Amino acid sequence: MSVIPLPLPIRSVAAGNGSAVFSQAADLFQLLRDGEPRTRAELAAITGLARSTIAARVETLLAADLISPVGEAASSGGRPPSRIAFNPAARVVIAADIGASHGVVALTDLAGTVLASTTADLSIADGPETVLAWVAATAGKLLADTAGGAPDVAGIGIGLPGPVEHTTGRPTNPPIMPGWDGFDVPGFLQRSFLVPVLVDNDVNIMALGEQSTQWPGDDNLLFVKVATGIGAGIIGGGQLQRGAVGAAGDLGHVRVPNADHVICRCGNTGCLEALVGGPALAAQMRELGFEARSVRDVVALARGGNGTAIAAVRQAGRDIGTVLATCVNLLNPSTIVIGGALAESGEHLLAGIREVVYQRSLPLSTARLRIVASRAMESAGILGAAMMVVQHVLGAAMIEATLAQATASAQH
Amino acid sequence: MSVIPLPLPIRSVAAGNGSAVFSQAADLFQLLRDGEPRTRAELAAITGLARSTIAARVETLLAADLISPVGEAASSGGRPPSRIAFNPAARVVIAADIGASHGVVALTDLAGTVLASTTADLSIADGPETVLAWVAATAGKLLADTAGGAPDVAGIGIGLPGPVEHTTGRPTNPPIMPGWDGFDVPGFLQRSFLVPVLVDNDVNIMALGEQSTQWPGDDNLLFVKVATGIGAGIIGGGQLQRGAVGAAGDLGHVRVPNADHVICRCGNTGCLEALVGGPALAAQMRELGFEARSVRDVVALARGGNGTAIAAVRQAGRDIGTVLATCVNLLNPSTIVIGGALAESGEHLLAGIREVVYQRSLPLSTARLRIVASRAMESAGILGAAMMVVQHVLGAAMIEATLAQATASAQH
Repeated sequence: MSVIPLPLPIRSVAAGNGSAVFSQAADLFQLLRDGEPRTRAELAAITGLARSTIAARVETLLAADLISPVGEAASSGGRPPSRIAFNPAARVVIAADIGASHGVVALTDLAGTVLASTTADLSIADGPETVLAWVAATAGKLLADTAGGAPDVAGIGIGLPGPVEHTTGRPTNPPIMPGWDGFDVPGFLQRSFLVPVLVDNDVNIMALGEQSTQWPGDDNLLFVKVATGIGAGIIGGGQLQRGAVGAAGDLGHVRVPNADHVICRCGNTGCLEALVGGPALAAQMRELGFEARSVRDVVALARGGNGTAIAAVRQAGRDIGTVLATCVNLLNPSTIVIGGALAESGEHLLAGIREVVYQRSLPLSTARLRIVASRAMESAGILGAAMMVVQHVLGAAMIEATLAQATASAQH
Repeated sequence: MSVIPLPLPIRSVAAGNGSAVFSQAADLFQLLRDGEPRTRAELAAITGLARSTIAARVETLLAADLISPVGEAASSGGRPPSRIAFNPAARVVIAADIGASHGVVALTDLAGTVLASTTADLSIADGPETVLAWVAATAGKLLADTAGGAPDVAGIGIGLPGPVEHTTGRPTNPPIMPGWDGFDVPGFLQRSFLVPVLVDNDVNIMALGEQSTQWPGDDNLLFVKVATGIGAGIIGGGQLQRGAVGAAGDLGHVRVPNADHVICRCGNTGCLEALVGGPALAAQMRELGFEARSVRDVVALARGGNGTAIAAVRQAGRDIGTVLATCVNLLNPSTIVIGGALAESGEHLLAGIREVVYQRSLPLSTARLRIVASRAMESAGILGAAMMVVQHVLGAAMIEATLAQATASAQH
């Protein structure tokens, strides 16, 4: 029998895929991003990377001012090894979360901490020039007001309420965004700021914000927004899953069993959104004689202890659970996070969802499944927009540096 | 307004994520794997990578014997630039596709071309030692019989009929595989071959085989196997999506609307598999007075022009389409490939699936959606097992080389 070892270290045997080593490098930043000071030796021990590899990476990050030396570590003799820590103040990020009728622009540091923010009513239907000019002007004002006056901008992250082709930053046939189809969002904003501009769907950035700040290291997370509409952001294998044209995660128009009596605005019957979206729930409460114009009114009734509203929210949870049971069988997430306005009604929604998911999904997939309410809540979008930029900038800087070093080395 | 450019080339602005540059490097192998000879300058032009980067990468691949110089290119003067091409004969891969009642072991080259293979009846229930000893012995015999006698083995790829934790290569609670739960498959095979061993679910490797050989570059593909059971392999963002415990893609137990009269072996009602899995279809045909013991008999009847069988297959397509419509809304794939025994019944199954998917899914997600029959068919599993190894070995070799170069460079 032929037994010829490859020039691969044994530790990469069965490592899963070729990106394992690079994941370890990415883990280095994840590690450092917690702000904890560590020595190079500690980083090598934790990551399993060679000390020479750690040294090269640390050098690159120091040169970019993304990490700094801090204090001295205890040593067993000789020159004390210096500790290094992430320097989140090295750059600021412009993060924007644009909804149908309001927008938020914030400045954050590289750890995603919000330094300043502005919220305003706006109409997405005013078109991209008007809305994005407001984003740029608001960001400019926030930067001018920030202590120090002119901080380095790492990039702009922006969430929009419709499908986006992430690689180009252009919306694709967004249903509630007249004038935005195919608009070059990065190009427009780069007239004001010559920095990377990353654009995504609002539910996708909420998923990223929730995952990166509340569930770091959870590579298979489903974020479900239940409000006027119903949508999901899918993180699978550690990456946002956007689909072929940025339309992934559309739960609102999935057909619910035994709901064919409901007609949806999309033209089909039995869609989840037509059954339990905000307008449907409010209409249902009005028919029963209660004052309710929006999902927020339904939530207020339920939180006030109105039994009819609580029953409606719980049944909405069951109907959403029917669709999520399919998602669990299909995607096998470890965490499902429920966000959006209806999630503020508390445990009643979650209880309905859990009831059906645990009944309908396979035991193997639910054995370690968590179904929880959003913790980041209203800030999930801004946090996600910021983290999208941080991941891009740190990742790109590291890869560029690695390639540059490799190239320089090859030329010797 | 603060306008401070980052130390990033403008081409990486809005590039999507930090792995863009590394994707380009991976593209270099994808390019070379077509076997077409190219000069370094041509590779630089096609990939957009710097010529110095191309030179470094080519050097690494030449040193590993994975590419070779071939012939001479036309030149405008001076020393003629040499062309290089992928050298698929540099190593062989051991690929195994193990089903419930049969197994295939093959040798392939690094392009996935099958050099030799052996098929045998076996029972997965005989347990891992018996089955894997057969795999090792069969591979050894194939290697001994192969011209040259003792070719370099790049690695072993193996597909099993149950959920697998891919990072460790251990099955997790596989329902039809007694004795396999948690078994160290790589460890066992590495007693015979000290090479990387990659293990995955059989439908996952079929998805990978179909995608890498028939739809290369299609980053969002859903492979659906319809046979005795029904399952899917999901490729999203270019990566196999395995979920938290390797259970992703279980379509068989998704609840189909208006099918609650059907009781499934899982204990729930209305599951897709209980409605249109092989045993259910065969039973349905028997009730109507036809001879049918298995899904293959149903296919034979349909292919023979039996109208009742054709109607049953088409209705099965509609029921599967109901579940796939949800998958389309959720995942937004660009291609759905239908494989497995029932797919051999021809266009009737596809017609039923298309009918419902195009009716029930969102127009944005179906505008450019293809729904097609498997082209790799019975060889999809073996091809995927081989490709899993090729991607691992090429990717790992390249990343190790890049890191080694970067480290060496940093130490100067």
